Amino acid sequence: MGLTSEQRAEIDAQRMDRAETRRACVPALEEVLYEPIAVLDHGFVRVIDYMGDDGAIVQAARVSYGKGTRRVQDDAGLINYLMRHRHTTPFEMCEIKYHVKLPIFVARQWIRHRTANVNEYSARYSILDKEYYIPAPDQLAAQSRSNRQGRGAVLEGDEASHVLEMLRDDAERCYADYERMLNEDREGNSVDAGRAGLARELARMNLTLNTYTQWYWKIDLHNLLHFLSLRADPHAQYEIRVYADAMLETLKRWVPITFDAFMNHRMGGVLLSAGALEVIKGMVAGEPVTQHESGLNKREWRELMAVLDREG
Amino acid sequence: MGLTSEQRAEIDAQRMDRAETRRACVPALEEVLYEPIAVLDHGFVRVIDYMGDDGAIVQAARVSYGKGTRRVQDDAGLINYLMRHRHTTPFEMCEIKYHVKLPIFVARQWIRHRTANVNEYSARYSILDKEYYIPAPDQLAAQSRSNRQGRGAVLEGDEASHVLEMLRDDAERCYADYERMLNEDREGNSVDAGRAGLARELARMNLTLNTYTQWYWKIDLHNLLHFLSLRADPHAQYEIRVYADAMLETLKRWVPITFDAFMNHRMGGVLLSAGALEVIKGMVAGEPVTQHESGLNKREWRELMAVLDREG
Amino acid sequence: MGLTSEQRAEIDAQRMDRAETRRACVPALEEVLYEPIAVLDHGFVRVIDYMGDDGAIVQAARVSYGKGTRRVQDDAGLINYLMRHRHTTPFEMCEIKYHVKLPIFVARQWIRHRTANVNEYSARYSILDKEYYIPAPDQLAAQSRSNRQGRGAVLEGDEASHVLEMLRDDAERCYADYERMLNEDREGNSVDAGRAGLARELARMNLTLNTYTQWYWKIDLHNLLHFLSLRADPHAQYEIRVYADAMLETLKRWVPITFDAFMNHRMGGVLLSAGALEVIKGMVAGEPVTQHESGLNKREWRELMAVLDREG
Amino acid sequence: MGLTSEQRAEIDAQRMDRAETRRACVPALEEVLYEPIAVLDHGFVRVIDYMGDDGAIVQAARVSYGKGTRRVQDDAGLINYLMRHRHTTPFEMCEIKYHVKLPIFVARQWIRHRTANVNEYSARYSILDKEYYIPAPDQLAAQSRSNRQGRGAVLEGDEASHVLEMLRDDAERCYADYERMLNEDREGNSVDAGRAGLARELARMNLTLNTYTQWYWKIDLHNLLHFLSLRADPHAQYEIRVYADAMLETLKRWVPITFDAFMNHRMGGVLLSAGALEVIKGMVAGEPVTQHESGLNKREWRELMAVLDREG
Repeated sequence: MGLTSEQRAEIDAQRMDRAETRRACVPALEEVLYEPIAVLDHGFVRVIDYMGDDGAIVQAARVSYGKGTRRVQDDAGLINYLMRHRHTTPFEMCEIKYHVKLPIFVARQWIRHRTANVNEYSARYSILDKEYYIPAPDQLAAQSRSNRQGRGAVLEGDEASHVLEMLRDDAERCYADYERMLNEDREGNSVDAGRAGLARELARMNLTLNTYTQWYWKIDLHNLLHFLSLRADPHAQYEIRVYADAMLETLKRWVPITFDAFMNHRMGGVLLSAGALEVIKGMVAGEPVTQHESGLNKREWRELMAVLDREG
Repeated sequence: MGLTSEQRAEIDAQRMDRAETRRACVPALEEVLYEPIAVLDHGFVRVIDYMGDDGAIVQAARVSYGKGTRRVQDDAGLINYLMRHRHTTPFEMCEIKYHVKLPIFVARQWIRHRTANVNEYSARYSILDKEYYIPAPDQLAAQSRSNRQGRGAVLEGDEASHVLEMLRDDAERCYADYERMLNEDREGNSVDAGRAGLARELARMNLTLNTYTQWYWKIDLHNLLHFLSLRADPHAQYEIRVYADAMLETLKRWVPITFDAFMNHRMGGVLLSAGALEVIKGMVAGEPVTQHESGLNKREWRELMAVLDREG
Repeated sequence: MGLTSEQRAEIDAQRMDRAETRRACVPALEEVLYEPIAVLDHGFVRVIDYMGDDGAIVQAARVSYGKGTRRVQDDAGLINYLMRHRHTTPFEMCEIKYHVKLPIFVARQWIRHRTANVNEYSARYSILDKEYYIPAPDQLAAQSRSNRQGRGAVLEGDEASHVLEMLRDDAERCYADYERMLNEDREGNSVDAGRAGLARELARMNLTLNTYTQWYWKIDLHNLLHFLSLRADPHAQYEIRVYADAMLETLKRWVPITFDAFMNHRMGGVLLSAGALEVIKGMVAGEPVTQHESGLNKREWRELMAVLDREG
Repeated sequence: MGLTSEQRAEIDAQRMDRAETRRACVPALEEVLYEPIAVLDHGFVRVIDYMGDDGAIVQAARVSYGKGTRRVQDDAGLINYLMRHRHTTPFEMCEIKYHVKLPIFVARQWIRHRTANVNEYSARYSILDKEYYIPAPDQLAAQSRSNRQGRGAVLEGDEASHVLEMLRDDAERCYADYERMLNEDREGNSVDAGRAGLARELARMNLTLNTYTQWYWKIDLHNLLHFLSLRADPHAQYEIRVYADAMLETLKRWVPITFDAFMNHRMGGVLLSAGALEVIKGMVAGEPVTQHESGLNKREWRELMAVLDREG
């Protein structure tokens, strides 16, 4: 994931630091604290800080003076109840902070989730590194014919090589021209003393959307679950889904009871309409139901049959 | 502040728990962690958890891989710069969680700050304790004649005693009737077996607005500063200002550099209009300026003179 | 609902005003614009302003230059698709503003929805009217034995009369003492010249929680639907549900296509967990499934059977 | 600003539509409703819808039954008072919706304001037009030497032409390759039947950051003022400032009283720290004050002298 040796050393130094605290601690998450999890070709996600644990959800739900918890089993029962009945505020009492490195076009999807705190590396103030995303061959997918925002089969042969070549060449050339416009090295000295150098805030516009950026991103657990339910979903674009998948791993370490409840009630769950529910009641009662009689349109019928693992 | 011995024991037990963490720690805040600070006659504020420190602000501003900090002096310079120029996002990277016990009429003002997470003790689900706020004699203020939402002189003599008596009697009677309607003890058993007992969610409507409630309240540092700038302000109602004052003490322990910058730039600072600025430029240049010539209306003029410690 | 003749005249005057606009208009909603819909004994909800219509959702989803709409049928198809697949942002493009009069204990539940704009009548600045909520006899419910935040059978006979008497007497006495403490009439003149009068911001604490307050409340359509899905739900407290029901009527006038999609997919819909979905698949396949084998706990099983209209 | 004739016709058609409404109307804003205001080389801002006017702010502040307004002079007094004393909630009662076309690197700054509703044209679902931003010669600024995120002198001669050439060539080539990868025309037909065509969601990553995108953007007046105070500020990047400037024009038409109050108290106003205020008090009293004695650091001193139009 392209850490410089200086960055690696900074991370290692911070991982060495230990202190005693009275706060709730989660050893399984502490294990990976600060450690980058590689995502895509140059990206990563790493947990920088966290507040609370499964117990903090229980504490908040009970507005308790002490730990608020009794037995693990009780906590699991309560957390599952809260998840099932959409009592969201206790989950807001936990908070997590990530450092993420990601392509700009992924960052643009990600930032649409507004209930988070963000500090992004500023290309107005600083110079971006030469790092851009190139899809792995098995992700070089054709446009889906049935779904306007989906992927079809993987490109192969000449078409695949040509696409990869274009992506690489264009990113390389744009970055080289970015540097040429800037006319400065990382210490801010002119490369060519005869030229002034374009303002950083302007030169950046020449970069391609697969250029990597990075940010600190902080969010409460309830909103993180909402983010993950959308972005770890099979309909999400692969390039953001792999970040969500990496974050699911950190979620499992951080709040294992909540993780299980989330996987059961949200990720693996399904939202049925009143119409779909009627169809199911009929089926359970052994009545034959057809799309035509169901009141569902063809698309809804197809989606329902898929949910039930039945042929449409 | 009316902790039961059971609550006191729960707090003490939690304060005894220690664990090792790789996260940023603030010993001065750990000292008072979980410990209630008394506010008003039965209320309190206590810090339950926190995330980040002054260094985390610097880290976020630099989107750094390690601590992001160099020397204390640099950090202070950067934090002051951020505060002065309204760069608010790095302050959002710290988070704090309080447990607060407060009268309902104060809770109603407080909750207007929407950028926080809240879990309140539910009077729909549970029974509220018999605790209500009665102002101390020196806070029993008359209505201000000049300011519709301000206080005048302190009430004295018979009027004062009569007011206190009414407040006490009404709260007592309303609470006693609340219990009578509920007809159940804390274990949920009927007091008078011949009656059904009114639903908790209904009976609570009989309580007066000075009844105490409590909640867990979690907020990021930027929004906390905004809350404090409004609620620790002399124009805020005394009964919420004392909570803000107690929280300022926790702020000073938690992020001392930010605290200083906040006191200088926000609490002690002043927002001048373009018109007021013109007046000041004239004054600094030694020109005599009058309200009439200034373009300011009487009220604005009076406010400006007050800011400059001059007679209007 | 206790409008004064002056208030009635103000509303009538505003209803008479007409102007020509290029904006999207909804005649069915204009019909009831400004008109209060009575709720509870003294409360109301009235629509004060609105922005957008069903077409605006379609327009936003398409980021179109013109109306963005083709045929009513297409619009309905798109809106149903958006609702089904949780594409929420187009619904945020419509906005509605209500004026609501409601008991304080209801206001305290309502305000927990943070994604709205609120201006409440200030009891710090002004004097509250003598209006308090007393439940109708058929709403005077006992505490549920099975559900800690639910209602059981209706109270009857002496117990009912006694509860009503206590509610009335306590509200009356508290209000009378509030006035006594204030010692001023509505023009701000002292009633008893020998007394100073307690500050309004203090005197209000003597009122009971069933006292009516009022506010302007503005929200976007997506967040309104979320509010209604929680508050028009059978598990919501009756006293807030009746407001939600009144607002559903205004929703139906305002955005009829969205209303239908909402009733089908959200109000009438159901969220199934992965575990519950497995049970249903088994049932549809004709396999006998028992709670014990299902992996669901008793409560989940009972809830699932209720959803399917089957005996547990 | 590159409207197609079809888009122009759609806008004209919508401008022709009139209806009668009981809602507050603002004729000066209706005049320009739907009409694009050109910004940069291909961008625009246009008002699509609005809710409320200056009177609605007054109405909300008074929680009134009717218009809530008395005389224009009273309204102006109240609005100025609210602005001066940071009473922000009444301004949240007005709402405006814009359709904006803007370069992606500007969109990335803009979206950082989270308190707005957004629907962006989806490059995952659709194909972006070939439109990219090239700065006008007088905006081709060098990097500032003193301010890391500022601009210096304008580039001239060969350097200027070379920069413009690179920007144009790279954008052209990247767009041409984008089309080549897509291998489909606007009707979705293959250009070259022998190739599959890369998924839209992938191909877009090859575009440069000066490519234009567009969105619907809706915000309440309070948050709009906050956005404008940051983005119409001289320190904002020119390419976003021109959008803010265009929006200030629409603000002036929409809520002229609020506009004046905003220009006086916010845009033309200044925030002084406690330390700076002490310096000014000394100066007004005729005492000579130097940076060294002031307690301000050099940068703060320089900023204060600039505010006072004095030499540092």
